[in-house]
Amino acid sequence: MTLPQRDKRLAAHLTWQEFDQRVKDNYIFILTVGAIEQHGLHLPIGFDYLMGHEVALELANRYPVVVMPPLQYGYRSQATVGGGDQFPGTTCVGAQALIATVRDILEELLRHGVRRIVVNNSHLENHNFLVEGIELARRNVNLEKHGCKILLTGWGNFVQDATLDALFDGKFPGWDPEHAAVIETSAMLAIHPEYVDMSRLPDESCPRYPKYSIFPTPPDVVTKNGALAPAKGTSLEKGKRILQDVFNGYAEAFKTEFGL
Amino acid sequence: MTLPQRDKRLAAHLTWQEFDQRVKDNYIFILTVGAIEQHGLHLPIGFDYLMGHEVALELANRYPVVVMPPLQYGYRSQATVGGGDQFPGTTCVGAQALIATVRDILEELLRHGVRRIVVNNSHLENHNFLVEGIELARRNVNLEKHGCKILLTGWGNFVQDATLDALFDGKFPGWDPEHAAVIETSAMLAIHPEYVDMSRLPDESCPRYPKYSIFPTPPDVVTKNGALAPAKGTSLEKGKRILQDVFNGYAEAFKTEFGL
Amino acid sequence: MTLPQRDKRLAAHLTWQEFDQRVKDNYIFILTVGAIEQHGLHLPIGFDYLMGHEVALELANRYPVVVMPPLQYGYRSQATVGGGDQFPGTTCVGAQALIATVRDILEELLRHGVRRIVVNNSHLENHNFLVEGIELARRNVNLEKHGCKILLTGWGNFVQDATLDALFDGKFPGWDPEHAAVIETSAMLAIHPEYVDMSRLPDESCPRYPKYSIFPTPPDVVTKNGALAPAKGTSLEKGKRILQDVFNGYAEAFKTEFGL
Amino acid sequence: MTLPQRDKRLAAHLTWQEFDQRVKDNYIFILTVGAIEQHGLHLPIGFDYLMGHEVALELANRYPVVVMPPLQYGYRSQATVGGGDQFPGTTCVGAQALIATVRDILEELLRHGVRRIVVNNSHLENHNFLVEGIELARRNVNLEKHGCKILLTGWGNFVQDATLDALFDGKFPGWDPEHAAVIETSAMLAIHPEYVDMSRLPDESCPRYPKYSIFPTPPDVVTKNGALAPAKGTSLEKGKRILQDVFNGYAEAFKTEFGL
Amino acid sequence: MTLPQRDKRLAAHLTWQEFDQRVKDNYIFILTVGAIEQHGLHLPIGFDYLMGHEVALELANRYPVVVMPPLQYGYRSQATVGGGDQFPGTTCVGAQALIATVRDILEELLRHGVRRIVVNNSHLENHNFLVEGIELARRNVNLEKHGCKILLTGWGNFVQDATLDALFDGKFPGWDPEHAAVIETSAMLAIHPEYVDMSRLPDESCPRYPKYSIFPTPPDVVTKNGALAPAKGTSLEKGKRILQDVFNGYAEAFKTEFGL
Amino acid sequence: MTLPQRDKRLAAHLTWQEFDQRVKDNYIFILTVGAIEQHGLHLPIGFDYLMGHEVALELANRYPVVVMPPLQYGYRSQATVGGGDQFPGTTCVGAQALIATVRDILEELLRHGVRRIVVNNSHLENHNFLVEGIELARRNVNLEKHGCKILLTGWGNFVQDATLDALFDGKFPGWDPEHAAVIETSAMLAIHPEYVDMSRLPDESCPRYPKYSIFPTPPDVVTKNGALAPAKGTSLEKGKRILQDVFNGYAEAFKTEFGL
Repeated sequence: MTLPQRDKRLAAHLTWQEFDQRVKDNYIFILTVGAIEQHGLHLPIGFDYLMGHEVALELANRYPVVVMPPLQYGYRSQATVGGGDQFPGTTCVGAQALIATVRDILEELLRHGVRRIVVNNSHLENHNFLVEGIELARRNVNLEKHGCKILLTGWGNFVQDATLDALFDGKFPGWDPEHAAVIETSAMLAIHPEYVDMSRLPDESCPRYPKYSIFPTPPDVVTKNGALAPAKGTSLEKGKRILQDVFNGYAEAFKTEFGL
Repeated sequence: MTLPQRDKRLAAHLTWQEFDQRVKDNYIFILTVGAIEQHGLHLPIGFDYLMGHEVALELANRYPVVVMPPLQYGYRSQATVGGGDQFPGTTCVGAQALIATVRDILEELLRHGVRRIVVNNSHLENHNFLVEGIELARRNVNLEKHGCKILLTGWGNFVQDATLDALFDGKFPGWDPEHAAVIETSAMLAIHPEYVDMSRLPDESCPRYPKYSIFPTPPDVVTKNGALAPAKGTSLEKGKRILQDVFNGYAEAFKTEFGL
Repeated sequence: MTLPQRDKRLAAHLTWQEFDQRVKDNYIFILTVGAIEQHGLHLPIGFDYLMGHEVALELANRYPVVVMPPLQYGYRSQATVGGGDQFPGTTCVGAQALIATVRDILEELLRHGVRRIVVNNSHLENHNFLVEGIELARRNVNLEKHGCKILLTGWGNFVQDATLDALFDGKFPGWDPEHAAVIETSAMLAIHPEYVDMSRLPDESCPRYPKYSIFPTPPDVVTKNGALAPAKGTSLEKGKRILQDVFNGYAEAFKTEFGL
Repeated sequence: MTLPQRDKRLAAHLTWQEFDQRVKDNYIFILTVGAIEQHGLHLPIGFDYLMGHEVALELANRYPVVVMPPLQYGYRSQATVGGGDQFPGTTCVGAQALIATVRDILEELLRHGVRRIVVNNSHLENHNFLVEGIELARRNVNLEKHGCKILLTGWGNFVQDATLDALFDGKFPGWDPEHAAVIETSAMLAIHPEYVDMSRLPDESCPRYPKYSIFPTPPDVVTKNGALAPAKGTSLEKGKRILQDVFNGYAEAFKTEFGL
Repeated sequence: MTLPQRDKRLAAHLTWQEFDQRVKDNYIFILTVGAIEQHGLHLPIGFDYLMGHEVALELANRYPVVVMPPLQYGYRSQATVGGGDQFPGTTCVGAQALIATVRDILEELLRHGVRRIVVNNSHLENHNFLVEGIELARRNVNLEKHGCKILLTGWGNFVQDATLDALFDGKFPGWDPEHAAVIETSAMLAIHPEYVDMSRLPDESCPRYPKYSIFPTPPDVVTKNGALAPAKGTSLEKGKRILQDVFNGYAEAFKTEFGL
Repeated sequence: MTLPQRDKRLAAHLTWQEFDQRVKDNYIFILTVGAIEQHGLHLPIGFDYLMGHEVALELANRYPVVVMPPLQYGYRSQATVGGGDQFPGTTCVGAQALIATVRDILEELLRHGVRRIVVNNSHLENHNFLVEGIELARRNVNLEKHGCKILLTGWGNFVQDATLDALFDGKFPGWDPEHAAVIETSAMLAIHPEYVDMSRLPDESCPRYPKYSIFPTPPDVVTKNGALAPAKGTSLEKGKRILQDVFNGYAEAFKTEFGL
């Protein structure tokens, strides 16, 4: 019987010896951090981690990369960024859990001798907690002494202003309301189309979008269905252009920071 | 174009409306907790979470179950249970991270209105921390008042003594050293064979197996390759028998506790 | 002897009876959160909290506002946002301290019966930790039940895109590198000029400004003197325009959210 | 235009270079910790931090001292020491917040190379938490190795028994009930009189003053207006005598410990 | 065979039914908190908890009291209060451990329905942490609603000024240096003489006793043998007088607070 | 007057010099951890710590051992292991308290120079938290460098399968339900009979004993009186056989690990 192969891009599918060899070969270890958060009626609640994970897998096709098991649960969804916690299915963790988890995993990787790490964030609300996880780990492990480098980034970071201008005719509303809208939907369409239900693209926007956060969330700052901006206008072509930026950005970062 | 379907057993693949409907339909929500821990030369380091996740997926084939994204990273591997942290690849989290993560996810599920939860543990070292996560959640959410029930179990719990007697000719050495050995390897062979490299079954045992834990770990209580007991003797037939116990056990539990 | 009056805008200068009366009169309580962080050679390290505090004081001139003692120490400075911790004088706190402090103060205000709170942030790195402080407080105090509302914002939030376009000829480099540069320096010049040393305006930029964070900080992403973008071009006129946006923004927010 | 000077005693008003120079010149860095706590009808709720801050500023007039931004919020007010939390305006933080904040700030100062630190406490309830903040910091930074010394004290520590005897005719009731009473009021009158409303000096005492703490606070151990002992008898002359002790005490301490 | 009786004053010796009956009978539950801390050459390192425990046992002889298992380990010894941590044998816990332990035990007692609790502290450094433990417990359990009262005190609180004047000829140096000196030694001699080695009473004092704490501890603020003040002058008579105050004080407190 | 001697097996009864001498003489320091947990109608709620403490005392009769003050309060009782928290008298602590306490005490012992430590656990639910306490301590103190060894064990670990077979005629139901049943009762009868009320041996069993934990606890998994299995059959002879195993086990461990 011929068995299917394990996916050797994934740390979870490696034996400890294979893992060890990749450490010795100075692979880049990518830890994706996402979220379980409503993404409208056309995208799954796992969108953030699924998207980040797809990007990591593609990076492993191109570079010496080990894809660590992604952290699927992210920081508490905020109303004007991801719809907030009033949606069923939005299942998040608090600061303590996220910080401690990231700190512990990084310390383990550094203990194994890993010298190149990418924390690949695809949920905006996670950002500062990932910083704190890294900050705590580097207080316990001397990065300089061991020649280690940790990048904290995410696919959204690499989308160019020129691309946003082109895709939105110069009217990009900013990343915060870009939730389950044109960019996220197009990008997923280009990388893993079965996660997109094109028949249910939302075409609604929040009645208002304040420049501040309000607790508790007033009813008019989130749409009924969960999108914060329309996804109408989603296209495969747009998704491809976005992904091009993303992988160009990663290529540039890997070259500059890791000499690849 | 006909797209492949999302896997609707997985919470991460559902829209928030689909998730919500399953809450209203009183589905069982399963949170698997595993580990990234060396499993000898023949099994991947993700074994614990992969095995638990396969069991959860199969349960979702049989019952109204939502499979939550599994927690892949588990509590620090201990020498005489999983080989300990001296193995490359063994990548664990501490008590604070695990407790807070489980507490937060459970509180979110309970907030959504979920009334039947299974915490499905497949890494022995996790046990007490999962208890504490549940204990903290139930201090914040009144389970009795909302008619909620949380089971804490794992596939290993359901393997019958009679089965162990049969498989080991009455000489089952106990669960602690059963790491990457006959039971785990056979069970995986029966549920997801591509994760098993039958050409590299270990046939070594620890020189000694003390009745206590020692810090730091002495060299003679762990084998060079990571198994704590031989995996020689692994067979598909044994795996099937183990799985039969596991799913019978879950069937009984679901019937008794959830009236299914 | 005629004594100078206490500054009755400041909570710290009130007696408990005066404080109580303002609670009963439904005043807005503003908690400014800043940072002690290098701000180049021309601005003091207390810039973030001083600027936020000045804004809060001016708001108290215009509205029924109580200015709570500001939190001067903010979250760890990050290299590409505030220069990072390699500068002497940058004196920050970690996530635990900031979250717990904000949580505790908010719970106290809510306990006193305060129903309108503004968390006035002037240090970008603080944002998510303030969110967590608020999230934890609202788990302990039911905001909805008591008719309480908490806004999380900051002076930078209210600067309009049109203003940025005008001030930068359409080339605003984004808020992250706007550290000790034209906006901050001009705004302070307009609100409290003695904190600005106009003779030492920096005219240097970082050799490179990556789209991601790097740990440890490479030497070329921070200037020698601490600015991340030039402050040349600072002017009182620009500062006035910025402040106009800020106070218009606050006026709009107070009207919309608090009905003032 | 001649601008007013910044107050170069204050760390917050220094540039990072000025801060750095003072570190190199081996200045004493003073971190005042106070409280926001009711102080009767004649003193503001910021009394503790305001008083401590005034003392620190005066020390900076006399010695090479940098006055760090004071921590205004202190540990939870206790009924028989400061009236307890039943008074509006008393706005405190818990142990976690205070310990973590002090620990983090001290670690930052030590990282900058500061070798002489004074933690200047003016709220009795803070004491042990400041000890713990220092204890945690010194576990992370080796004070002995770097020749650092941290003093934990406060203005009250330096008031001599002879002075108390003189001021109270030998009947000093102890520091605990000395809240918003003769000593505090007189001292403030001497150092910053505009904070004292001499027309409202309380002349009441608690009906009883038990030798233990009671939770919850019984109504008869706190006066209606917040004083625990009479402030009648307050005078500028007494305040001057107290301040003389305070600054003599600091002078002695700086001489003995820092060789000034 | 006639077995010795269990000591029914001790909670640990009761069955759960006996414990339950005492709750229903509204007994006072005493939780002693001590320390393991050097006490010179003539007293054991367990002095603080042993002394507090003896007092609790005697109270159980006189009143309806349940003596909970005492917390033997206390907060970190401070140099000018207990000699500090440079002495072998001084084995302490930090703030987190002490606060969480006290909080948890109190919550358990309150859950059982206990309505009268005494936290009986015999180690000065513990005080604020016990306060925080109580404060956290009473945030989780509504004392007022359930008619519960918690006293925080200790044997030292009840020694009268008149007694101190008499024993020290009006020259009592204060409680802080009263470590392993006349009061502690005499009191133990009166309540449990076998813990005192009268042949080794210290007669030395610290070369200096500053009015502040110094980190790290300078060598001249602690004696070589651990006493902070002489124990010469210890006598059984003095001990009896001290104990008289202690039990009078407890009698008064129980009468006033618990109506006994 | 001839005073009774202190018990020099107990750390609490030693002076700091005696403690120090034992450190220098390389004694084994035993930290017992138990629980306050219902043990049916015939055993006291302190059973776990009392039993562990008796074993430690006997070890001190045989070996160079210092008996540290035992931690009487253990982790939250679980229904199918110790009856759970629905019983009056069951008074437990949570994970944070137990982990922090064990970590701190171990760090103190290691700081004193102790090189041989036994954590002697007699409450099953404690196990993983003791592991975490040790893991955290060894991150702060390098055990290898200082030649330190920590054993984590307990009296139950050493009872041999052959003994269980003999005592239960081959039908030992496992350790989890062995609560206040034959083994515990017999062992206590042999080591400290006055803690056993032979007239009230329970003869009831739980109606069902599921292979998983259920929250909240259903009424049928715990007996009315607290035993999880019958204690009928308890005998002194059985107890002696159990103790023989225990002390043989400790002898073997001390020989193997400490070379005694």
